[in-house]
Amino acid sequence: MLTIDECRDEHRRRQKTLQRLIAEAGMDGALIAQAADLVYLTGTYQNMHLYVPAEGEPLLMVRRDLEAARADAMVDNIVPLRSFRDLPRLVADAGLPRPERLGLEFDVLPVAFFQQYQRVFPGTDFADCSAILRRQRAVKSVYELALLRAAGRRMDALYARLPEVIEAGRSEAELAGRFEALARAAGHQGLVRMRGFNAEVFWGHFVAGAGAARPGPFEGAVGGPGVGPAFRFGSGMRPVGRDEPIIVDYPGVFDGYLVDMTRIVVVGRLDPELERAYRVALEIQERLVEAARPGTAAGALYDLALAAAREAGLEDFFMGHGNPVPFVGHGVGIELNEWPVAARGVPDELEDGNVLALEPKFVFPGRGTVGIENTFIVGAAGLERVTNFPDEIMRL
Amino acid sequence: MLTIDECRDEHRRRQKTLQRLIAEAGMDGALIAQAADLVYLTGTYQNMHLYVPAEGEPLLMVRRDLEAARADAMVDNIVPLRSFRDLPRLVADAGLPRPERLGLEFDVLPVAFFQQYQRVFPGTDFADCSAILRRQRAVKSVYELALLRAAGRRMDALYARLPEVIEAGRSEAELAGRFEALARAAGHQGLVRMRGFNAEVFWGHFVAGAGAARPGPFEGAVGGPGVGPAFRFGSGMRPVGRDEPIIVDYPGVFDGYLVDMTRIVVVGRLDPELERAYRVALEIQERLVEAARPGTAAGALYDLALAAAREAGLEDFFMGHGNPVPFVGHGVGIELNEWPVAARGVPDELEDGNVLALEPKFVFPGRGTVGIENTFIVGAAGLERVTNFPDEIMRL
Repeated sequence: MLTIDECRDEHRRRQKTLQRLIAEAGMDGALIAQAADLVYLTGTYQNMHLYVPAEGEPLLMVRRDLEAARADAMVDNIVPLRSFRDLPRLVADAGLPRPERLGLEFDVLPVAFFQQYQRVFPGTDFADCSAILRRQRAVKSVYELALLRAAGRRMDALYARLPEVIEAGRSEAELAGRFEALARAAGHQGLVRMRGFNAEVFWGHFVAGAGAARPGPFEGAVGGPGVGPAFRFGSGMRPVGRDEPIIVDYPGVFDGYLVDMTRIVVVGRLDPELERAYRVALEIQERLVEAARPGTAAGALYDLALAAAREAGLEDFFMGHGNPVPFVGHGVGIELNEWPVAARGVPDELEDGNVLALEPKFVFPGRGTVGIENTFIVGAAGLERVTNFPDEIMRL
Repeated sequence: MLTIDECRDEHRRRQKTLQRLIAEAGMDGALIAQAADLVYLTGTYQNMHLYVPAEGEPLLMVRRDLEAARADAMVDNIVPLRSFRDLPRLVADAGLPRPERLGLEFDVLPVAFFQQYQRVFPGTDFADCSAILRRQRAVKSVYELALLRAAGRRMDALYARLPEVIEAGRSEAELAGRFEALARAAGHQGLVRMRGFNAEVFWGHFVAGAGAARPGPFEGAVGGPGVGPAFRFGSGMRPVGRDEPIIVDYPGVFDGYLVDMTRIVVVGRLDPELERAYRVALEIQERLVEAARPGTAAGALYDLALAAAREAGLEDFFMGHGNPVPFVGHGVGIELNEWPVAARGVPDELEDGNVLALEPKFVFPGRGTVGIENTFIVGAAGLERVTNFPDEIMRL
């Protein structure tokens, strides 16, 4: 753990880096309103706006609770915000020039908010600063890496308790609830932040057999029946059977930072074809670990994984069936879908300090999904694994 | 349960009503992309767009999984959508005129999406249709009311099991996890949909003593410490003590529809002042039930509740302390924050078919939060209560 002064320095460095990046992009400031970006820049979230000028001191404007912001937020200038109309005055009162070109998080900010900003900052030109922030956040600091390693250790301990919760004949949802109860007791944040519109992620996927091979509502290899048509995500009410793969794909969020991991459990024995596909997934993981280092193109990881699946004659089942997702890994941090993304055609090169969840998986319609997922830090020498629970299929 | 034909008719009626309302508002169509609105209009959600023309057949354009959409969505015309660029062509291929004025959900739609729509529909004028949808959704159908009554019964059964999960000396988060595990096993959807930017609701509030009196990240009477500064919502890691109010404020989501309810539990004895405030909350609930019927202004309910709190000398603690929230109730349905809202100054009159969660609460800094919440249907004769678990403080 950092001292409060170290924690302030850490967040001040993040703010300063953003200031440099927006200045380079020709923006005079950025108005940050999204929860994950605010957690990154201030250490906390509540209904508030952070104005980051290209030069000068960042200004935190708090709508909800000033006292909590003063206790939690790693920002010196904190003032109350009563209405959007007051934004320009508060910026001026802080001695900061009115921005001529203002960055906003276009990828997540609702149109109605944008229209209000347009009204209160007439004459200002607005630009999208979301890619700048996502690129910055993709490279983790020493402190962030320490939090991610700690989250990995805590998830390892949780996965070790899977035998306590798994029981054939109980519904996926019931088993999920038991696992989540252990996670809650261990201090797991529960809420999994995912960037984007309709990013309706809820815990993770605790699904078995054929249901796990059903596509989910958004891009991901693992789906699930959900409890019904209104929410086709993850666990359903069907009892988990013997001899079918149970896939436990859970992000672990501790102190705001998440790792992602997947293991396969079976009560009884797994179909030899799925067993073989699982071994191929482990081989793909090994090859990815060998290939990934600073300078490797993120897209090359996907190509390599797909080629290995093809070699094994399993291309048709790789990362989905019929409608596969074109990636094999994704950045993690405060959000589940950070950069870089190891997806088809992505030219971005891996950098020292990236954190990647690599998840080669095979989806067999009507039978189930198998695969592995671990979270890795990209370092100068290659990948450092932060989720270390054994990869083997757990047999109960 | 409805037959599949009745279910199709139900959703077709919702679509037809929206068609009439957008036509009245001078729009040629509405392009619906938000999860909750899609569940309302089609019965399901995945990555997809519903184009609702002012006249003609609605067209569902599916990005993720066509097969699942064909099985789940209550729409006849279903086509694949590969790219936003294809939207105008798909509309034309369905024999529908190109919209000159197109409704979008400005309150939730990200700017980046809006800019893409502007590019692919050049010359089209865009308008906000979110208020139209929210007003429509505020008046529930007979079928929706049946689902809400059923959700109420299932939550009553869950609250009856609170004695199984509550134990002094365990953390709020651990007790929350136990309760949520029971809810999962009972088929609770888990995910609580809340409309808006940064609507980071996770389950509900299972908080005790002083922590419960801490404001949350957004407008709500109950807050909580959360597990840390990155997520100051609900349960924290402090052990629940004897003789302090434990507030259990959980939405119950079944078959996509939610009710909201709150009860107070205490292990031991409650402070007489909090006990008295609780009785005042029950009296306020009674007065609200007497006053609310079609034609009552939603804001009048808040005024009445505030006046009763003042009469009891508890105004300073009503719905928060220092920074109270100016409402005493809110609509519920697919989302936690539907219309109408019983908030200060809201002139909207209650209508037959509204569903309201009424939640008079008192917040005592450093001591805890007490209050009651139940969900009610507005009918011609007044309110029908759908959460019927006894209101009394549960003493363990």
